[in-house]
Amino acid sequence: MIRVAIAGYGNLGRGVEHAVAQNPDMTLVGVFTRRDPATLKPASGAPAFSLADVAAHKNDIDVMIVCGGSATDLPKQTPALAADFCVVDSFDTHANIPAHFAAVDEAAKAGGTLGAISVGWDPGLFSLARAYGGAILPDGADYTFWGRGVSQGHSDAIRRIDGVVDARQYTVPVESAVEAVRAGKNPTLTARQKHTRECYVVAAEGADLARIEREIKEMPNYFADYDTTVNFISQEELKRDHAGIPHGGSVIRSGKTAGGANTHVVEFSLKLDSNPEFTSSVLVAVARAVVRLHNEGKTGCVTVLDIPPAYLSAKSGEELRKTLL
Amino acid sequence: MIRVAIAGYGNLGRGVEHAVAQNPDMTLVGVFTRRDPATLKPASGAPAFSLADVAAHKNDIDVMIVCGGSATDLPKQTPALAADFCVVDSFDTHANIPAHFAAVDEAAKAGGTLGAISVGWDPGLFSLARAYGGAILPDGADYTFWGRGVSQGHSDAIRRIDGVVDARQYTVPVESAVEAVRAGKNPTLTARQKHTRECYVVAAEGADLARIEREIKEMPNYFADYDTTVNFISQEELKRDHAGIPHGGSVIRSGKTAGGANTHVVEFSLKLDSNPEFTSSVLVAVARAVVRLHNEGKTGCVTVLDIPPAYLSAKSGEELRKTLL
Repeated sequence: MIRVAIAGYGNLGRGVEHAVAQNPDMTLVGVFTRRDPATLKPASGAPAFSLADVAAHKNDIDVMIVCGGSATDLPKQTPALAADFCVVDSFDTHANIPAHFAAVDEAAKAGGTLGAISVGWDPGLFSLARAYGGAILPDGADYTFWGRGVSQGHSDAIRRIDGVVDARQYTVPVESAVEAVRAGKNPTLTARQKHTRECYVVAAEGADLARIEREIKEMPNYFADYDTTVNFISQEELKRDHAGIPHGGSVIRSGKTAGGANTHVVEFSLKLDSNPEFTSSVLVAVARAVVRLHNEGKTGCVTVLDIPPAYLSAKSGEELRKTLL
Repeated sequence: MIRVAIAGYGNLGRGVEHAVAQNPDMTLVGVFTRRDPATLKPASGAPAFSLADVAAHKNDIDVMIVCGGSATDLPKQTPALAADFCVVDSFDTHANIPAHFAAVDEAAKAGGTLGAISVGWDPGLFSLARAYGGAILPDGADYTFWGRGVSQGHSDAIRRIDGVVDARQYTVPVESAVEAVRAGKNPTLTARQKHTRECYVVAAEGADLARIEREIKEMPNYFADYDTTVNFISQEELKRDHAGIPHGGSVIRSGKTAGGANTHVVEFSLKLDSNPEFTSSVLVAVARAVVRLHNEGKTGCVTVLDIPPAYLSAKSGEELRKTLL
């Protein structure tokens, strides 16, 4: 049995708890939290511990899944935990991945542990799709479309506007752009041509709706470069119609062979009812691989690009060859 | 530079020749053939050699891509060549993969070489999609749809019927079945509900068309379990409209998390203008990985499931992390 622990008990931590229960070769040792552990009641009945005491559990845990946020938690927590534990995280601030990799690599090598960072679907499975696609079709281009799905970052940005009570933002791929890419047309696409942004906003009573809409649509980086629609709704409607956290998207590689004579299109796509639960499922499969690689003596930092796919599966190599090849 | 050689110069061998030219870190040493090498004029200008003399080239070749057929060539050629060379093949007789794996593993271990078998898209990339999908969503099911594309085996089966001059068979997925799977409905599907078979047949002058059509539609294993349409056309029409070898398909995994509360759908799909050219492109990327793994000391037999994805790419780990994650 692989002994798994969770650091951080938000949406992602709860997803990991569910995912561990789906894998009969794994057991959940406990949940570690910065809050008072007495206030935590994990749904699975697993015990809650203070994160401050984590080192005392060093010999009871094969792999720690770090479920904090990428902005401030993971850059500190993952290297710190890697001193004592094999770790897996979902660090997704793309530009800072090389620095985070270096920090975890150093800590894990010093501690004789193994860490896997940036695990999830993007970065993660989408990175895999790009790596395979690019290696197989070097003369080509790839495109990533996200959605239809909830962007937490864009929803938060709307909530910071004066007069906004709550908000939900959906990123939506432009269907005609997706179709052009699928047809192997290799189009050049601006941000605006690839995605639209749909906002559902609950405004404070008496707020100036025209101003809020304008502030959203003109917000640089987040909305100004996109065709954005703003829908004002009630708090009840938001709760009733927009409670879920769906997401998804596609990585499409199109490339040519035989001097351009033939075109091939490779597509990897996801349609997820719950973004954090799916991300958690990827984290748990990679946690299995991390334990196996560490048992073979590997230390330092890896990403999904470094892990043989068979290591993610509970099945033996023999069984995989017989049933999947 | 990775020094690549090709054994066998049919559609697949010619595809490998094109693919090597697309990869600047590779060079084509030569093409080995059972025919008289003087009759072979490789398009790239690479030299042709007799396969009987291959052992003399042992020190000039880093990896041999074996481009024979799965029925009779590869079961003999791949283990024989593995005695002296790192090898890659596209062995695709699914039921015999474990035996082929064992034979190549034994020969490669004895020779101190590394072999990768069953490389291509199915088996190959589709196997990867099944492995990742199953590891991440253990509570789920996967579905494979092939086509729309030319099935060489089914085309050959039609050609063996008395009175048939030539034939081309397309395997076509049933769109409503694909949509049900994509919607996460997890349907139970018979062979007939998943694919139809479209046949284009050139009959001999005066042949009994009704008999030919009946013999096709009633052929066990190949056609009897499918809704099959038979179109009689002229040799000119066959040549004009059905000269290509397109193929493709999808592997779709749908699975549930959180005790069944949420459904996720993972899809990997291909749309290929030329089946052999795409398969060749996969072979060449895997050949790069085989050379790297062998340089690290690995011997024996592997499949794509055993190879870290980054090893397929010409880019460094650092570059991949920076650009793909």
